[in-house]
Amino acid sequence: MNDPLSTDPTEQIASVGELGLLAHIREWLGPTAPVSPAGMGDDTAVLADGTGNLLTTDSLVFGRHFDAELDPALAGAKLLKRNLSDLAAMGGQPGVAVLAGFLPPQTSLLWLERFVRGLADCAAHWKVQIVGGDLTETDRFLGFNLTLTGSAQRPLLRGQAGTGDEIWVTGELGGSIAGHHARFTPRLPEGQWLAQEHSVRSVIDVTDGLAKDLPALLSAASAVALDLTALPMRATVAGLAKSSGRSPLAHVFTDGEDYELLFAAAPEWRSKGGPDRWATTFETRLTCLGRVVPRIESGAPLLDMATEQPIECGPGYAHFG
Amino acid sequence: MNDPLSTDPTEQIASVGELGLLAHIREWLGPTAPVSPAGMGDDTAVLADGTGNLLTTDSLVFGRHFDAELDPALAGAKLLKRNLSDLAAMGGQPGVAVLAGFLPPQTSLLWLERFVRGLADCAAHWKVQIVGGDLTETDRFLGFNLTLTGSAQRPLLRGQAGTGDEIWVTGELGGSIAGHHARFTPRLPEGQWLAQEHSVRSVIDVTDGLAKDLPALLSAASAVALDLTALPMRATVAGLAKSSGRSPLAHVFTDGEDYELLFAAAPEWRSKGGPDRWATTFETRLTCLGRVVPRIESGAPLLDMATEQPIECGPGYAHFG
Repeated sequence: MNDPLSTDPTEQIASVGELGLLAHIREWLGPTAPVSPAGMGDDTAVLADGTGNLLTTDSLVFGRHFDAELDPALAGAKLLKRNLSDLAAMGGQPGVAVLAGFLPPQTSLLWLERFVRGLADCAAHWKVQIVGGDLTETDRFLGFNLTLTGSAQRPLLRGQAGTGDEIWVTGELGGSIAGHHARFTPRLPEGQWLAQEHSVRSVIDVTDGLAKDLPALLSAASAVALDLTALPMRATVAGLAKSSGRSPLAHVFTDGEDYELLFAAAPEWRSKGGPDRWATTFETRLTCLGRVVPRIESGAPLLDMATEQPIECGPGYAHFG
Repeated sequence: MNDPLSTDPTEQIASVGELGLLAHIREWLGPTAPVSPAGMGDDTAVLADGTGNLLTTDSLVFGRHFDAELDPALAGAKLLKRNLSDLAAMGGQPGVAVLAGFLPPQTSLLWLERFVRGLADCAAHWKVQIVGGDLTETDRFLGFNLTLTGSAQRPLLRGQAGTGDEIWVTGELGGSIAGHHARFTPRLPEGQWLAQEHSVRSVIDVTDGLAKDLPALLSAASAVALDLTALPMRATVAGLAKSSGRSPLAHVFTDGEDYELLFAAAPEWRSKGGPDRWATTFETRLTCLGRVVPRIESGAPLLDMATEQPIECGPGYAHFG
């Protein structure tokens, strides 16, 4: 039997979770999947030809990344912006894209037109050309995938933040569901600018929440002491926390879809005027969240600077339960 | 209301058919979508940087491109081979790939492992590296997308076959559903070889059937006079025709998923020994199907050489029926 679905819960992908599943897939791919940065594991792949070419792919699914309430033009733009945010986190310039659509026959032409025109407007704004695509008919599922090329002279990788580095974040965090998730501006100019700042060591975009994405910024054996009084909380968090029953902190750390840049810079970045140069270049808010410290063996990666205790915020967004 | 599904049949994408939908999407994308060969309209896009870089994307959906009867390893390989066949039709060399999966939580780990390992084995065979990916959880839908880069010194385009050219096809046609659709070998060496034959003018891979793909090979105002006695019919066609009630000819012209190369060559290709060089290089069967003739105004593109009448075979495979 080759049924792709299993009725045995221990045999289902949900049993291993997203990270477990990714680990399995890398193992199954074997030597055909190079390690990061040439392969999986960062915001984009860095192609091995040495010219800093980047390749990334992201999907957008009805009922998951957008719903019938959202302006289709915003949904179309969001598909591209999710990929642009990945490029931004590498300090990259966008290149060209290919689009794949999975559409049921009942898909509304009017809806699709607004979706595609929204995508096209966003592509024109960021000077991305859509050079190809593929359409597949489905029974009911409605979703899209977009693959984007890019280039970077100095690709900004994850996992490089080491002891003494300061951790910075652009914009605000949490409460994205109230609108930001579809209205954000990818931080492309900011990412490209950061790539030219030599003290900037490591960058990631916050898509699954600080709780998950901040540890991914750190080198092995590193932790972060965070100043919880400094967190740039989005204005929508307070209202959401009232109805969700979860703390504002939990929203900030785990909501995800912030599409902000989270980066580590050596201390001299601040002492030599990095934040000042930022402020004369961008209106985008910039906040120092804390500092990288050595990680105690089997200790938590995120600590409260005030208490030196692990931060209790729950996990970041995890796909596949 | 922004409901992506419509209950009004005249408002549904099914009302315009695949080609109508593609035309709409190109219009909606506007200037952000360059014309072929830099953009949509050929087997792959030919990137405008002049180095012959290629980019293509293709999808594979459960219940459509494979079922629970098929060995998952063959399904995984098929996802890549569909893309490789597009590259072959450009005379390209494969580069790297990114993989997107849309998976319900009930997806069987064992099934997925066999799928991914099948993909990886195929990738290793063709020296393709899988450099990135994206996973999205779905309610029930199970599908994949793969985007592949490649390069070609002289990309072999569609739509270039003109009067006097001879039309050739590799392998055999029709009856793919009986097994070939998942067991085919992408014609990469053949495509790369054809790119070095200067009399070879235009190439496409047969995925939707001769009825649809052969007209796409022709320049405007061209038709083909076909020798119907010469068609290389796959052995499975006779049996399928018995149970389908459709003629063997209809199967050959409209089944699709042949993944063979269909190409046009100037007459001197034959007179200067092209087919002989082919035969000393490949075991792959090669058949001359006929010759390009001027197309009578509003006349059919496919003619029976014996009767000079249009070939009645029904349309090739059309998505969004």
